[in-house]
This record gives sequence, structure tokens and C-alpha cells, in this order.
Amino acid sequence: MPGVRAGHVTLRRGDGIRTGVTAILPHAGNLYLGKVPAASAVLNGFGKSVGLIQLDELGEIETPILLTNTFAVPACAEALIRRAIAEDPRIGRDTATVNPVVLECNDGHLNDIQALAVTPADAAAAIAAAGEAPESGAVGAGTGMSCFGLKGGIGTASRRLRLGDETFHLGALVLANHGRPGDLRLPDGRRVVPGLEPGPGTEAPERGSVIVVLATDVPLEHRQLRRVAARAGAGIAWTGSFWGHGSGDIALAFSTADRRPHDPPSPVLPRRALAENRIDALFRAAAEATAEAVLDALSAAGPMTGFRGHHREALRDLLPGPPPPG
Amino acid sequence: MPGVRAGHVTLRRGDGIRTGVTAILPHAGNLYLGKVPAASAVLNGFGKSVGLIQLDELGEIETPILLTNTFAVPACAEALIRRAIAEDPRIGRDTATVNPVVLECNDGHLNDIQALAVTPADAAAAIAAAGEAPESGAVGAGTGMSCFGLKGGIGTASRRLRLGDETFHLGALVLANHGRPGDLRLPDGRRVVPGLEPGPGTEAPERGSVIVVLATDVPLEHRQLRRVAARAGAGIAWTGSFWGHGSGDIALAFSTADRRPHDPPSPVLPRRALAENRIDALFRAAAEATAEAVLDALSAAGPMTGFRGHHREALRDLLPGPPPPG
Amino acid sequence: MPGVRAGHVTLRRGDGIRTGVTAILPHAGNLYLGKVPAASAVLNGFGKSVGLIQLDELGEIETPILLTNTFAVPACAEALIRRAIAEDPRIGRDTATVNPVVLECNDGHLNDIQALAVTPADAAAAIAAAGEAPESGAVGAGTGMSCFGLKGGIGTASRRLRLGDETFHLGALVLANHGRPGDLRLPDGRRVVPGLEPGPGTEAPERGSVIVVLATDVPLEHRQLRRVAARAGAGIAWTGSFWGHGSGDIALAFSTADRRPHDPPSPVLPRRALAENRIDALFRAAAEATAEAVLDALSAAGPMTGFRGHHREALRDLLPGPPPPG
Amino acid sequence: MPGVRAGHVTLRRGDGIRTGVTAILPHAGNLYLGKVPAASAVLNGFGKSVGLIQLDELGEIETPILLTNTFAVPACAEALIRRAIAEDPRIGRDTATVNPVVLECNDGHLNDIQALAVTPADAAAAIAAAGEAPESGAVGAGTGMSCFGLKGGIGTASRRLRLGDETFHLGALVLANHGRPGDLRLPDGRRVVPGLEPGPGTEAPERGSVIVVLATDVPLEHRQLRRVAARAGAGIAWTGSFWGHGSGDIALAFSTADRRPHDPPSPVLPRRALAENRIDALFRAAAEATAEAVLDALSAAGPMTGFRGHHREALRDLLPGPPPPG
Repeated sequence: MPGVRAGHVTLRRGDGIRTGVTAILPHAGNLYLGKVPAASAVLNGFGKSVGLIQLDELGEIETPILLTNTFAVPACAEALIRRAIAEDPRIGRDTATVNPVVLECNDGHLNDIQALAVTPADAAAAIAAAGEAPESGAVGAGTGMSCFGLKGGIGTASRRLRLGDETFHLGALVLANHGRPGDLRLPDGRRVVPGLEPGPGTEAPERGSVIVVLATDVPLEHRQLRRVAARAGAGIAWTGSFWGHGSGDIALAFSTADRRPHDPPSPVLPRRALAENRIDALFRAAAEATAEAVLDALSAAGPMTGFRGHHREALRDLLPGPPPPG
Repeated sequence: MPGVRAGHVTLRRGDGIRTGVTAILPHAGNLYLGKVPAASAVLNGFGKSVGLIQLDELGEIETPILLTNTFAVPACAEALIRRAIAEDPRIGRDTATVNPVVLECNDGHLNDIQALAVTPADAAAAIAAAGEAPESGAVGAGTGMSCFGLKGGIGTASRRLRLGDETFHLGALVLANHGRPGDLRLPDGRRVVPGLEPGPGTEAPERGSVIVVLATDVPLEHRQLRRVAARAGAGIAWTGSFWGHGSGDIALAFSTADRRPHDPPSPVLPRRALAENRIDALFRAAAEATAEAVLDALSAAGPMTGFRGHHREALRDLLPGPPPPG
Repeated sequence: MPGVRAGHVTLRRGDGIRTGVTAILPHAGNLYLGKVPAASAVLNGFGKSVGLIQLDELGEIETPILLTNTFAVPACAEALIRRAIAEDPRIGRDTATVNPVVLECNDGHLNDIQALAVTPADAAAAIAAAGEAPESGAVGAGTGMSCFGLKGGIGTASRRLRLGDETFHLGALVLANHGRPGDLRLPDGRRVVPGLEPGPGTEAPERGSVIVVLATDVPLEHRQLRRVAARAGAGIAWTGSFWGHGSGDIALAFSTADRRPHDPPSPVLPRRALAENRIDALFRAAAEATAEAVLDALSAAGPMTGFRGHHREALRDLLPGPPPPG
Repeated sequence: MPGVRAGHVTLRRGDGIRTGVTAILPHAGNLYLGKVPAASAVLNGFGKSVGLIQLDELGEIETPILLTNTFAVPACAEALIRRAIAEDPRIGRDTATVNPVVLECNDGHLNDIQALAVTPADAAAAIAAAGEAPESGAVGAGTGMSCFGLKGGIGTASRRLRLGDETFHLGALVLANHGRPGDLRLPDGRRVVPGLEPGPGTEAPERGSVIVVLATDVPLEHRQLRRVAARAGAGIAWTGSFWGHGSGDIALAFSTADRRPHDPPSPVLPRRALAENRIDALFRAAAEATAEAVLDALSAAGPMTGFRGHHREALRDLLPGPPPPG
């Protein structure tokens, strides 16, 4: 997605720390002064993300979006608060407070999540590292994640859309940590069953999650962004999942087409929005890019051994070639 | 509200029929071709309204809004379908179907609701009768309604809003059929307890409902309309209610500022929306107009005897003077 | 599903009438006196179903569930109201009113939907025809439906679940009218592209819908039923859909394990509920049965020519053999 | 509420620190092993509370509930995570993670909120201080809060309910930080206008919030708890508010009647639930206790001067006597 940047901080220390932070910046400017329209869709709410209540009441994002492990949410939220105050000292004093948005998955299989290894400084570093071509695989928040019993992580994919005379884009970034072993369905219909490590962990219930962040430059109002975000659920299902009980499956969509000023210049503001009868192109793009981003995460991630010697194989070591795109 | 029209058909026949239909037309043109942005808020969902699922998915209304008794919803919905087809024969054949919006309350205390007295022709007549100054009290859908143990019915109220250099409006029309005897709270703090008819009906559980329709010429997106509609709940609470279990308390808000074409001329459309930091003026207007409209319904309605000899007193017969405005 | 019955009335008249009604009865007794716990999930709200607001506020169903075409909803709702009054004359007089539940899809491609062919008597006949082994294919509400550009209709599937020492069941009945031509994905990964009739209709936007009704004998509270109903969305996605804009995709789940008395014998009632850590078995069953029921509808339906000479091919005529089960 | 305990840590340091933490413990045991059924209602989502998404997906609370200022949410969430791990080292390793619940208001008028004064140790101390008779007024999370332009804070109220032969209870604890100056409505209809400090702050937009926590020993399922929580909105409205734009107005209700085991002993569990036709008694109690708790907060709080010399008068200094109960 043109203009959208993402960055990672990867923490791999000793035998047990396999975690990190991934930051997504909808634009390069001050997000508090130039908010972006956004909406979320909770596919399965067994998750501890923060910021979604206000995001859906006001329909906008005013901080970078951080992805991390479940117990690192407070450190990341604190980092976003401190950063916003540093950029605009009016916050909480002369104007409203700020709504940090942090999304999470549980990497407790490969990572010693009880160590609370992520610090606010790590979160700030992930924001500082943001660029236009973020790495995929076992990096950033994806470092310790698992997906369908394999090594999961960060994946991306995008689609171009032609609407009238203009070309638009939709990009997906996923933090893939969902799915039970054996449920993965490749685009050609194949199912992939990992050779799981023996022992009591094999039958363990899913304690995963998947986070999908969708960015588009199509102008959309909050209601439309909510509809687009929901289609991430179809993309996740296409990979073989049914949004398991223990999985916090959350999608968030934002549009970079227009910014919402913190200090509006007039009581009535001009807006733009996609004609609803054209929205199917965006729905399809959202579902396809989500499914493809999951496959990208699985394809890019190498094998990993982590906490307590737990091991996850890489999809690429189980397949003769790379999986075909979505 | 300038440009918004409402009309009634009142059915009073014999000892038992005390019911009717009230129609609200957001504008004078073809509503299917020029839809209006709208949203609903379900305060308590013990109700049988139709049309709200699509209204909130697409954020728009494409038929007149009909209010009636609970068992007359099918007749009114059929009337809206037939009217839409007659106006645009493409519907259901060469273009989408149509989403009728019908809201209801249970007038079964004063009206023989099992008689299913309302016909599609009655609904069509209510639409045809629509004008800019609808009557209040025991008319149209309000004919047989009860409110706080007194005679309820249709009430209206409105507010002017100054935003920048422009003057805007918000109008409320309520179908007031809610509240337990003794809970009514007048603006000056007084509570009014009706002298209820003796017998087993006295302790009957609330089986009421209240419908609030809010119209404004402020440009608002769906999310904002939903926020405005929710404030009808504060207005209802201000009259002494707590949105009782047996009451279908539903609010709907629409904006007449812009129309949504059924056949959009281009993929991206211009819109306008109120700056969010100005929305409190609209919230206050919505709550105040709702409360005042309930008092208008109670003030305008005369006493009535109906089905099985049930009787409701008029508020105006219990008070020395008219209740002060909101 | 043991104890759950369904029945069809099929209307095929002349060149243009291809429609009908399908009734689902959660149990053989009086549903108003013995309500069943239920919840809905709106996957895409471009639909005109009735009854869902109260269903989710109170968490129960108190009438048969009727499926029909979009413009037949009023006739079916009226039939349910009249039937409930006939069975219990207190309704609307001495006790609450009744909440009819009618779900719909748009069969306007093969059926002359403007004819409003379905009558309340047809709806009553569908209820009367209910049995334990309902037919699949182009019957009842499914008569005129289309799915992925092919002939759609009614489909069913079920799963057995073992929880502790007991065996439970989950059954799905779908009214399959969704999906764009070419999007159908068979379980083995194949995509099926129908040979569409030439002409302007070929590129027509989706104006479909899919209704999924899930029945289970596992004891579930409303919140759990809502979670189960949502998994119908995964099943629909597995067939290749992304819940298109113009499609009213709605799922409803009910449990037959316990009944809710209309007149409760005491203020606090005993209940049972599945332990949440066992619910994944039900989620998987719901997704699988939904996907399999869509394939059942496609497999059972023969080719059909209807309104304006529109034609839909049968899946079975395009495949060498029957599609493998889900 | 019998068995429910609450505790405060109050931070008053120098000229600028006026904040704190309030902890609510639904029962004295381990909340992770014995979760309590709960639900939330978002009256206005301009707020940064954490934990509500999972709370409503699973219908339960598994940590103490912490109330604090907006920027102290991360510190409080971290404290809850560390406490849960200390009590049960399986968390995040051998079983699921834990869902901290932290609710907040913005005390930035009297408190130097940018100081991030609250630490995880403060949060732990509030939990340790919990007892059955928590103080009201400018204590704990209420230390720096404002309400209707007056000094706000913590307030409590309760109701007894008779259902059949049994006596039940409902208690409310509010963190009152909402309402515009002049909007306060006392139970006798009086409005109270504070003598506001002069200067630019006088016309400042509302940047408040109100948190309502309702506890009851009536057995309720999640859906019923959500309905009860929503009635806090009526109570807030009764005090004169319309849930202003800038106010994060959130209610949470839990039942202490039954506990949900983290490790269920069998796949199907016994439950109890209130008969729905008796729920109005609980709705009324929830609305009344909420309104009375707001008045309790206003009545108990003394005047305060804080950050930047900002001052809030006490209601008790403006009235001849204490306000009459709700």
C-alpha cells in the first residue's frame, strides 16, 4: 500500500524469548492531528486488543497500530501514550486524551510469555523502524507465533482495484497465529499436516489468534470499512480455519484516502465515499489479500525452536515448492 | 422539520377497533431513487419492527417509514412493497428488491389487536395523507396507545441548531406507548399517578413500546446517525422510563441533507459530515426533542375507552395546566 | 436432527412462478408455550428477514421458522401471527404478542417475484407438511433460488458429536441462493464455472442471499448459540463465497436441549450449558455441516427454466460424479 | 453487595497529582479459577477501557476489576497480568492467558495526567485494600474526577429485591466524571449550576466519562447481564446527562450467584437463570442504584484544587442539605 509503512522489532534472546513488536503507520504525518477513518470486525473475541471501542465509536485511528504478544499489550499501549504526548503536549491537558491501538496474539508456545520481555522502548523502536517494504515471516510480533501447527508470523499481500478511471489499492498485513494442525487448506485444495512434536502438547486446544490489518486508498465511511474488515473473516476461513474458540480473531480496516483533522476547520466537512454498488471489488480484494497474506507468513517463516524446547516446522520444508498465491 | 412530512390513518370502529397507521416521508421525491442516510438504535429489543437489519448494513432508508400496531406490520410491509414496485417496476426484476421499514407498538389494551384491522390500503392512505404539520395525540398509529398508564399516542417536538453560520433542525416524532403507571416524571420533577381502572389489569406487566423517529438536516454519516439515535434513549429515560423488559424501544434517525442515488453516477461520491466535535449540540437536541415529544403525545391525547371497556385517562385531565416544555 | 421437522410448499405455476415456503419446527409441541433458546448472526445484512431483533434480545424462538422469497415475508409473518393466536387466544390480549421469524432470499431471477404469489395459506401448508426427512433441492423456499450461477435451493447436512459419555447432534438446513458464477469451490479444490446464458444478465451484480438454520441438542446459552451461528459464515466461505454486498447472509442457531416456558413456574430457573472449552467441536460441526448443506442443495437441484425464460443449469450436469461430501 | 469487596489507593502529591486506583473483587477466592458471569454495555464509546471484547465473547470476568485514570490503564493491566501469573503459574504456559479488565475516566482537569503517576504497585495495593465497605467521594480512581462541573468521584448504592421466597441484592459502584455544568438534575427536579472558575476552561467541551459497575447475586446469563448493564444508562440519564460525545460511558454487570470453573468438571454444566418475566425488578434496581450512586459520589466528595490550580466545588457546599436519595 503506497504511503503505509510497517516496522519490526524482533526479540530473540536465550532459549526462551521469541517475541517482538510490529508497528503499522497509516501515513508519515502526525496521526493525532491527521486521523484516518477506520473500523474493526471481531471475528472471535477471545482476545485482549485495546483501542477498538473508541475506534468504532469515532470511526478513526489516531496512533500507530502496534501488534505484539498478549502480555506485551500494556507496554505497547504505554509507548503509544508517551509518544503521542511527546508529539503534542496538549494531549490530556488542553485537548482530549489519546486512544492507543494495540492488537495481540498469544506466542506462549515458542516464547516465554511470562517474562514480559517487551518494553515501551521496543515498541518505540518498531515505530522508528517502519518502512514501505516490511519483512515477512518470523519477525516483529510474528517472531514466536504458530499457525496450523507450523511456524507462523507476519505476512502481507495486496490487490489493485480499478474503479472508473482510477486505480486503487488494498493491502493486508496479518499476524498469523491461528489454526489447528491439519486444518490448513492450500489454494489447490491440499491439506498440510505437520509432523508435530510428540507429547502432551499435541492435543492441546488452540490458544492462538490472528490479527488482520487492511489498508486501502479507496475513500470509505466507517460503515463501509466495517464491512470490508469483516471480509478478512472469509479470507481466514479460506485457509481452512473456522475461527476457533480459543483464538482472538480480529480484523481492522483503515482508509488513507482522507484524513480527519483533530481541530476541524468548520462544522460541516467534505467527505468522499465509495458508491456502495462497487464495494464487492473491495470485499473480494480483502478476502483474497487476507488469505494470501496468511500463506505469505507461512511461506516466509523458517523453522524455530524456543521456550521449553518447543519446536515448529516451516511450511516450506514440508512442501516441494512454494505455495501458489491465493 | 422542513421537507419532512407525516400522515395518519385512524381506525376507530365499534367498541374494539382503536388503531391506525402513521407514515413519515423523509422527502417528497421517490425514496427508492433518492435514499436518505439513516441508522437505528435498539434500546430494548422486545419488538417486531422490520427493515432495521438492512437499514444498518447499508445505512439508508428507501421507503416511507410506517408506524402501526404489532400485528399490522405485515400489512404495512406489503403496502410498502407494492408501492415501491408501482413506482419503479424494475424492483425485484432488473434491480435489487426493496427494504420496507415498519415500526410498531402493541396497542392491545385499548385495541382488539387480534382483529388485524389494518389493511395495506390503510397504509397507503396514511402515506397519501402526509403533510408538514401532522396532528398529535390519539391519531394514526397512536390511536390506541397507552403511556405511563395514561392515554398515549403520537407526539412531536423540534429544535433549531446553530452551527457556524448556518441554522439546522432536528425533529422528533414519537409513538408513545411505554412506561409503567406512576413512573412518569414531568420536567418540573412531578410524578403523575393515574387513577387506574380497578381489576386484574392494574398490576399487569408492561407490554408497551416506544418508537422514536428523529429527522435532521445536518449532514451525518451512518455512524453519527447511530450515535444521535441512541440519545433518544436519554430522552425516554428523562420522562421516567428505564426501558422496561416488555417494551420494544427503538429509535431511528435519518438525515435529509444529502440523498443517496440508487444508480450512482460514479464510483466515488462526494459526501458531507458534521465535524464530530460539534455533535453534542445534536445529542442534546435529540434527547430534549424526544422527551418533549413524549409530553406532547400525553398532552394532546384525550381520554379513551376501547376494547373490553378498557379505559385510559388523559394527562390533561389530571393536571391543572399543560406540562411545561422539556 | 432428532425431533426437528421441516416441510415445504412448492409453487410452480406457468412460465413465471417458481417459489415456495419452507417451514422448520424446532419441536412438535406448542412453540409459544415451550420456546427454544436461539441466536442469530448477520453475516451480511442486505436482507429483509423479520423477527431477529427480539430473537436476540430474549434469546428465544416462539414460532416455526419460515423461509421464503423476499416479497413473501409479509404473507408468511401474517400466517405465523394467525397460527399463534389460533393456538393460544391469550396472545395480544391477556399476554404478550408473538414474534414471527421469517427469513428470505431473492429468487427474482427464476421467479416472478413481483407476483407476490405466496399466500398465508401456503405458509400454513408448509408448516402442516413438516416431517423429519425434508427433501433437498428445488423445493419449498428453494424452488426458484440460484447459487454460484447454478440452480440452488434447499440443502441439509448433519454431524454427530461425542461429549463425555453422551452423543449429541448438529444439523444444518440452508437456503442457498448466494455466490457469483465461477466462485464455487468444491471440497477437492475444483472450481466450477457454469455455462451462463448469454446477454446482459451475465454480468449482473449478485442479488442473492443465503440463509443457514442450525439446530443442535447440545445445551447452549444465547451467547454460545450466537458463537455457533457465526461459524455458518466459515462454512459459507469454504464454498468459495466472501459474503457479497448484495447478499443477505444470515444464520440462526437454536438448541432443542431445553425449553423456555412462556409462564415460568418460579423466579429462578435451572439451565444447562456446554462447558466453553468444549465448544470447538460444535464450531467445527457448524462450519462443516453448513458447507456440506450448500453442496447438498447444489447436488439435489435439477436444472430449471423460469421467469422471462431465465435458465439455471444443475451442478450434477456439469460434474462427472456427485461432489464428495464436505 | 454481600461478598463483593472494593478498595482504593489514593494519590495526592504536590500541586498536581490527584488520581488513584479503585479495585472491585467479585468474590474473595481465585477469580481465574472461579470466574463470574459478566457483560458490558457501551453507552458512549469515547473511552479506553480494556478487557471488554473478551468479557462479552466469553461472558465472564477472571480478574479483579480496576478503575483508574485514562493514562494509567497500562500500569493497571500489567498489575493484573502479574498478579494472575503469580497466583497461577500455568497462565500463558500450560493454559490460556488472562484477560485483565480495566475501566477508566479522564481526570486531566484536576490531575496532571501526563505524569503517569499510577504504578503497577499502586494497582496491587488497591486490590490488597479491598473491603466490604468502600469509601465514597474523592478517593481511589475518583480522587481527581469531576462531575457536572462539580467535584465527582466514587459513589455507591444498592437495592434489595424480593423474588419468590428469596431476597436478592444489586449494588452499583460508579466512577462519576461526566456531565456538563448545569445539567445535573436532582431527584426533586432541581438543577444545580456550579460557580465555575473564570477563564477559557469554562466553555471547554466535556472530556469526562462515567463508569458503572453493577453487582448482583441474582443468577443471570450473559444476555440478561447485558440487558441489566444497559439500564445503567437510564440511571445516568436520570441525573441529567445525555451521554455526551466526549464521555466514555461504560457499564459492566456481573453476577455472583454462580462461578464458572476454569477447568470444568464435565462437558455439560448446570446453570441457573432468572425467569425473564421477572427482570424488570432488576432493571429498575440497576437504574435507581446507578442514579443514587452518582448522587452519593457528588455528596461525599469535598472541594478540591489540583493541577494548574484548577478547582472544583463540592455539591454539599452548594445545597442547604444533602440531596434526597434517588
